[in-house]
Amino acid sequence: MSELSARSGVAIPTIKYYLREGLLHPGEQVAATRAEYDDSHLRRLRLIRAMVEVGRLPIAAVKKVVTAIEDESLPFHQLLGTAHYALSPQVEPEPTPEWEAAKAEVDALIADLGWQVAPGAPARNDLTQTVARMRRLGMGDAIRTYAETAERLVREVELDTIPVGGDRDAAVEALVLGTVLYGRALEALRRLAQESESARRFRGDGFSPAP
Amino acid sequence: MSELSARSGVAIPTIKYYLREGLLHPGEQVAATRAEYDDSHLRRLRLIRAMVEVGRLPIAAVKKVVTAIEDESLPFHQLLGTAHYALSPQVEPEPTPEWEAAKAEVDALIADLGWQVAPGAPARNDLTQTVARMRRLGMGDAIRTYAETAERLVREVELDTIPVGGDRDAAVEALVLGTVLYGRALEALRRLAQESESARRFRGDGFSPAP
Repeated sequence: MSELSARSGVAIPTIKYYLREGLLHPGEQVAATRAEYDDSHLRRLRLIRAMVEVGRLPIAAVKKVVTAIEDESLPFHQLLGTAHYALSPQVEPEPTPEWEAAKAEVDALIADLGWQVAPGAPARNDLTQTVARMRRLGMGDAIRTYAETAERLVREVELDTIPVGGDRDAAVEALVLGTVLYGRALEALRRLAQESESARRFRGDGFSPAP
Repeated sequence: MSELSARSGVAIPTIKYYLREGLLHPGEQVAATRAEYDDSHLRRLRLIRAMVEVGRLPIAAVKKVVTAIEDESLPFHQLLGTAHYALSPQVEPEPTPEWEAAKAEVDALIADLGWQVAPGAPARNDLTQTVARMRRLGMGDAIRTYAETAERLVREVELDTIPVGGDRDAAVEALVLGTVLYGRALEALRRLAQESESARRFRGDGFSPAP
């Protein structure tokens, strides 16, 4: 176990906790005080760290994803879906006409783009909340441009990072890391591009905020 | 004041709090117990709500932005910068070789794209942190694609939503709302596109996660 800790960078008490919680499968017991761990344990620890540290998932959600990985009868697309939905913010629908109008707009957009998205996908409500807010403020006419942009990035980059047909731990890890880290990078890049475009339009040399 | 509250949707005690904090300028005193408020008060309340509710800024940060708005000598680009930097996550540099390598990569990317971004822009550190993490995990080769995408969205949509040459409150409000809400919409749309693309590649009908 100390070797597993050294190679994975995960502290021994943390590894013991993951074993107790059933997130990590036991090693092969080769002596009373010695178990052997292999690459599958290293991959699982990488996945757990990705979900906890990068995805900020609670342990209960990690457990759900691990259960899906270990259920080999669960098809690949549904395996990815389990991890993906665990990562998604849960937004409650609001019982207002504005919500209904925004929901209809979101559903129509998804249908119009030909996207295959389950009716209960959490990102539908997430997007509905933002569109409702935008509409109340007179914004949001460019939503379709954003949808097409998202589609291009996902098709050309993000789904390609997921290894298919091999280890299920590695596939889920790639999905989690790609979803979270490309999202963060895109957000920071939008802010940098805004500063630059503001400088270009309004003749400054980068933002110099008031002290 | 009750009319201002009714028209703005902001409760009277909240309006009084904003007056005390100097976020809202006083109305014109027309009688001992009666002050008159005009469109400038309505616009300011809209802006404060955008910063507090959508941008989730603390009152101290809102105060800083209001001070910048009221300093008419501050050029427009720097006014936007004050609001923009207030909205940006503050990431501390890490004293590691990985950080230095990622920082050099981010700086080279920005220079290569010809973006005009101040050396101290908070989004540089924010992006550096994500790129460092990606590189450690063997990801991140598509960063330039994301940068070009961000540039296109900002140039074609986001900066166009900012009214120029008129009311400074309205311009800052548009910047805050555009930055936050288009960011949220894009994030939800990426997740929807991922589900759809996974369905297309792996032959499902939308994610059906394990129960």
